[in-house]
Formats: sequence, C-alpha cells, structure tokens
Amino acid sequence: MSDCVFCAIVAGSSPAHIVYEDDDILGFLDIRPVRPGHTLLIPKRHATNLAELSPDQGGKLFQAGQRVAAAQRASAIAADGVNLLVNDGRAAFQTVFHSHLHVVPRHDGDKLVLAKSLLIRRDNDLPGTAEILRSELQGS
Amino acid sequence: MSDCVFCAIVAGSSPAHIVYEDDDILGFLDIRPVRPGHTLLIPKRHATNLAELSPDQGGKLFQAGQRVAAAQRASAIAADGVNLLVNDGRAAFQTVFHSHLHVVPRHDGDKLVLAKSLLIRRDNDLPGTAEILRSELQGS
Repeated sequence: MSDCVFCAIVAGSSPAHIVYEDDDILGFLDIRPVRPGHTLLIPKRHATNLAELSPDQGGKLFQAGQRVAAAQRASAIAADGVNLLVNDGRAAFQTVFHSHLHVVPRHDGDKLVLAKSLLIRRDNDLPGTAEILRSELQGS
Repeated sequence: MSDCVFCAIVAGSSPAHIVYEDDDILGFLDIRPVRPGHTLLIPKRHATNLAELSPDQGGKLFQAGQRVAAAQRASAIAADGVNLLVNDGRAAFQTVFHSHLHVVPRHDGDKLVLAKSLLIRRDNDLPGTAEILRSELQGS
C-alpha cells in the first residue's frame, strides 16, 4: 500500500521510534501517546483490518504485545498495568487503516493523568522513551 | 483457582451465556455489557494476567477474538467496528483476575450511546444475544 503511513515505516521511508522488530511484526512509539511509552505494534505485511489479518499474523501480533507489555512493566517506564487495544473500523475509532495493536502503560492512580493525556497526547522525549523499551526488549 | 469466577464458568459450576468454545478458549457474554454482544474471551487454564499467559495461549486468545469480532459484524448484531481490549492489572482497570479479552461491537455514531452504556451496562436479552453470536460462530 503505497499511501499507507505504517507501510512507509516498515519500508524505512518514514521515520519512527522503533522499539520492537521480528520477522512479522514491527513496534514503534505512538507519536501522540496517551501515556509515555504508548507503543503501536503492526504486521509488516499490510492488513487493513482484523478481517484481512491472518490468524497466524494475529497470534504473532498479540504475542509481541505480551512482550512489549512485560517490557513496559520491567523497564524504567515501570508500568503497574497495561492496556492492549485494537480499534477495528472507523466506528471503533480506527484512524490508520493498517491494523495495529496499542500497548499503553498504566500507573496506579493515573486516571486523571490519563484523561488529561487523552487531550494533550505528548511525550517530550520520544527518543529516550524508545531507548528504554528497546534496551529492555533486546535484553529479554 | 477455586475462588475464581471465570474458572467456575469453565468448570460449569457458574452459569454464563456461552458464545464460543474451543480446546483452549471459552467465550461468553459480559453480564454488564458496554454494548449488547460484548463478549469476554478467556483461556480455560487459569492465568491471572498477561505475564502468566503463555505466548501460545495468548495467540489463541487473540485468534478467538478475531473470530468473535467477525461474527459480531456478520450476524444480526451488525457491528460496523469492533474494539478488542485487555485490561492487564488493577492500574489498567482489570477487575477479574483471570486474564480476558473484551470484544466490543461498535456501530457508526454510537459514541454517545457508548458513553451512556458505560454507566448503565445492561442487555435486556442476554440469552437472545448469545444465541445470535453462537449460531454465527457455529456456522463459521
């Protein structure tokens, strides 16, 4: 998909803060994180939505999600909890039509911070956050 | 886990509106749905959280989620979109400590209905809704 922003990241023609990569899955920071460390995992092969994602690729996507969630807890991000989320279809708030899994680190008592972050969605140190997760995942 | 409500459903000692079952995964309606058709998928073998869920079981859980999402679209529930969600840990709003995947059907323009449903969380016909999904999944 030549006009897909996530395919451009896979192709290396668009920049991203990569935190995870295997043969099938790529993970990078959401540039508008709802919390710092908010990671998007995508199948490298374009799939518009869950229906286009093979069960094999879906399973691998979720397994990568488990690994990133563990890294968000174990690393300096020090998450107390994690939300994994797929928005499938415009009605479900999907905005980029290359299927992706959100992995959002959460902290005890962060409800108000989260609510504020949903409006502001900013991380002032994306490179530093990416390095924290990348290092943790490379060591795991 | 003798005190786990989801293990009791797996054991058949607690009632539920079952919509999906395979060797590893069980799916049933959330009794407090944020939208009618809201389904919970669980590993039959107890896992408190994502860290206790083997990658193999995690992959199967997500694949079941893909199937239920497709059924929510194809059946009379007629979802226009679907949210898949794991709340992992109390900080991430996990309330039942047997890891589970929420599969929530969405409809175009349902934002306000969803907001209201988050407060009320009711389906007046859980058996009928379960039958719609069960029939669709058995035929698929």
